[in-house]
Amino acid sequence: MRTPAGVSAFPPPAAKPLPKLAIIAGGGELPALVIQACRESGQPFFVLALEGQAEQRYIGDAPHFWCRLGAAAQGEKILRDNGTEEVVFVGKVRRPSLKELRPDWRALKVMVKATVRSLGDDGLLRAIMREFEAGGAKVRAPHELLTSLLAVEGAYGRVKPDRQGRIDIVRGATVARAMGGLDIGQAVVVQQGIVLGVEAIEGTDALIARAGALQREGPRGVLVKVPKPGQERRIDLPAIGAETVEKVAQAGLGGIAIEAGGALVIDRAKVAARADALGVFVFGVAAGAAAPAGP
Amino acid sequence: MRTPAGVSAFPPPAAKPLPKLAIIAGGGELPALVIQACRESGQPFFVLALEGQAEQRYIGDAPHFWCRLGAAAQGEKILRDNGTEEVVFVGKVRRPSLKELRPDWRALKVMVKATVRSLGDDGLLRAIMREFEAGGAKVRAPHELLTSLLAVEGAYGRVKPDRQGRIDIVRGATVARAMGGLDIGQAVVVQQGIVLGVEAIEGTDALIARAGALQREGPRGVLVKVPKPGQERRIDLPAIGAETVEKVAQAGLGGIAIEAGGALVIDRAKVAARADALGVFVFGVAAGAAAPAGP
Repeated sequence: MRTPAGVSAFPPPAAKPLPKLAIIAGGGELPALVIQACRESGQPFFVLALEGQAEQRYIGDAPHFWCRLGAAAQGEKILRDNGTEEVVFVGKVRRPSLKELRPDWRALKVMVKATVRSLGDDGLLRAIMREFEAGGAKVRAPHELLTSLLAVEGAYGRVKPDRQGRIDIVRGATVARAMGGLDIGQAVVVQQGIVLGVEAIEGTDALIARAGALQREGPRGVLVKVPKPGQERRIDLPAIGAETVEKVAQAGLGGIAIEAGGALVIDRAKVAARADALGVFVFGVAAGAAAPAGP
Repeated sequence: MRTPAGVSAFPPPAAKPLPKLAIIAGGGELPALVIQACRESGQPFFVLALEGQAEQRYIGDAPHFWCRLGAAAQGEKILRDNGTEEVVFVGKVRRPSLKELRPDWRALKVMVKATVRSLGDDGLLRAIMREFEAGGAKVRAPHELLTSLLAVEGAYGRVKPDRQGRIDIVRGATVARAMGGLDIGQAVVVQQGIVLGVEAIEGTDALIARAGALQREGPRGVLVKVPKPGQERRIDLPAIGAETVEKVAQAGLGGIAIEAGGALVIDRAKVAARADALGVFVFGVAAGAAAPAGP
């Protein structure tokens, strides 16, 4: 398991024992980083690893139990038996089909409450969060536990967006925020003022590849990722890493813009090094800024 | 050239000679339908066929001149020499790169006015329209000349959207209208409440193929196309035809929803026949309806 430098813990260790944290883990490496943060801060934890979503290599030897997404009653019992008081949802959760889901009575109840058929992409997760809260658990955001990964303002490497790039970032952020408000994607690609692509459920990698192929000559396009507004931040702050940088460069785009405080940057040293090596920018824009500052 | 039945003329023939219409023609068969409508109504016309965009087979033997998109001064002179008083933009115009465009001084002036680099996809066309209006020409909408192609309410064939389909249509229309307001695409695909894909510049065909592949089990997805708000209707009402029906069926989607009065349906008899043969619906929703009526 990778142990990136600079993962800090929050809250800091205290005399009073910290509440036990249930880590409900989906795909990707973020669950590993939350586990590591708990270990560093001394916060007790237990991992509920979602079958078909979480990856063993990112759970390692942490105390955990594998559970189907649809087995809500079982999951609830496991967490109760383990005495968890707080809960965090971390990692990618691919939305399963109803058949894959095989919901138990408990899961069905949540789904009915959520009237899942007319909800947006995050509707079901929001409903699950509300259930935990109704049961007395405190829902934590991954970024509360991973404060050192929060995006900062400015360039992560030596490359910076030029004037056209900054104009494209502003347009992209406007569009991406509107999309987020509609509970759709969080990412768009803009080139020379034109929106080349908008992310829905195909994921950011597919968007990057498609938009790269649609570019025209001249200044290169920019991938812009912003958080969804309001509550959604607790679930799903956009995350980027060195791999994102590589895909953007491969697709021929000019760089990545994220919102300072509104994205997780996994292993910033590696991100900056790859960006420099590949000649693309990774730029943190102040939240709510009309335009990123620049020369 | 295909001559679909039911293409009516507007305005009707009158004693007073009709003003001469400049048809600025892009790709697809719509220019042919406008030419036919002019012939039927007796309105004199002249076609400015855009190089690399318009197709000879849809211009036929109509009086025309081929002109580069960037050769605005030449285009203006041709239309002046031909005594046109009205103008209609019809057919798809792929946005060229600056190099392909090779704008002359006249085109450059329009582009500078439009500060084209920070505009949305239709910004340049809007600027061109304003130039024509400033020069005293009346800008006509294609659908004013093709009233019989305007989408009507209800099902075009025997297949109708079911309850889930109707819910998806409402969600799709909401999202597509928001996208249109941001000057992006006009089409989205929704399945079981989830937005599978959003159109940017890749075009509706690419959206259909991508979204089809992202479908999950259960009720099939719906392609929803709505017009952009306000002025944009004059340029670019979405159009569907039998080919669209075939692509939707091929991708495994369940149907197409359009807005009554807000889309052009090319050859409705053929559209209905293909929809019936392939088991998909084509459904016109009342503009501004909260939900399409149903059984």
